[in-house]
Amino acid sequence: MTRLLLPQIGVEPPERCDAARNRRLLLDAAALLVSERGVDAVTMDAVACKAGVGKGTVFRRFGSRSGLMLALLDHSERELQQAFMFGPPPLGPGADPVERLIAYGRARIATVEVEGEVRRAAENSPGTRFSAPARAVSVTHVVSLLREAGVEGDHELLACSLLAPLEATLVLHEIRDLGMSTERLEAAWEDLVRRVTRA
Amino acid sequence: MTRLLLPQIGVEPPERCDAARNRRLLLDAAALLVSERGVDAVTMDAVACKAGVGKGTVFRRFGSRSGLMLALLDHSERELQQAFMFGPPPLGPGADPVERLIAYGRARIATVEVEGEVRRAAENSPGTRFSAPARAVSVTHVVSLLREAGVEGDHELLACSLLAPLEATLVLHEIRDLGMSTERLEAAWEDLVRRVTRA
Repeated sequence: MTRLLLPQIGVEPPERCDAARNRRLLLDAAALLVSERGVDAVTMDAVACKAGVGKGTVFRRFGSRSGLMLALLDHSERELQQAFMFGPPPLGPGADPVERLIAYGRARIATVEVEGEVRRAAENSPGTRFSAPARAVSVTHVVSLLREAGVEGDHELLACSLLAPLEATLVLHEIRDLGMSTERLEAAWEDLVRRVTRA
Repeated sequence: MTRLLLPQIGVEPPERCDAARNRRLLLDAAALLVSERGVDAVTMDAVACKAGVGKGTVFRRFGSRSGLMLALLDHSERELQQAFMFGPPPLGPGADPVERLIAYGRARIATVEVEGEVRRAAENSPGTRFSAPARAVSVTHVVSLLREAGVEGDHELLACSLLAPLEATLVLHEIRDLGMSTERLEAAWEDLVRRVTRA
């Protein structure tokens, strides 16, 4: 099955139960800060305050602000990855591959309001934009859906071209600078996927 | 005609003849440096040396290294713009709109070897990535070709989605990190355009 071929990102040795709970608590606090006040509001101090722990706890867990941001990005990518690998259809296995591809793009667009700024911060560093493990997982997922849908052609490049308009920097530009709605973006994504995959 | 509706970027009052020649000489020297030794080699000193003028001349003309880089980007965008607005078909007016769109992507991909690094430097600054005047010209051009080709749908978003895989950062990643050839990228672009525009 396709899902067995996909590498999982960020698989680490199991954490002690309280450490895992602690990490989750801090990441939830950071995500909440991003959604409420934007990515610039995510300082080690603010996260500690929001989570009701000491600043030292945040530093011990993530090392630095950029360590925290990477953990936040990884956390968000891992949730999406879980959803498309093991979650319910249409995003997860069991649905028609074209419907799964449409659901994948919708899921990325829908999360941009909260996770977009974190993703954008990562995308605008030339070193991490296309080299993150999550990138390879996304490309592999889209390639396998295109193959399963019986689409002919250069699957790898077609996957790169389909993922390009889902980049958070572009999606945020379309929403904030051009005033487009999430619904409009989702409809245009569905239209693009249907055009690209039709026989 | 469509071409009359397109705003032209960087239209400035005419320069004195020798000033224009001087500017051209310096920009050609800078472009040559990029193609020979990469974007990091473009220093004010190196450009002065290559063009056979004093360093002060380069500073008087461009102010700073980033002023020079912006001028280089503007120069390259303006040449492409001239070609698709007034040049010979299939890039310029007169050809079938789908063929013009294919030629437009090919032209962007073909210039990435020389101009890609300069474009990438601009793209990786979140402030300039989508707000440069050249961006609006590109979107307007693609929208008008889609319309002329009789494509139904959300032309503006479809144009954004088609331009996304042509971004220099992605194209350079595909060529340098993934080892894809320019020919392969051009073929995949043509395939994408034909899929998107077919009735």
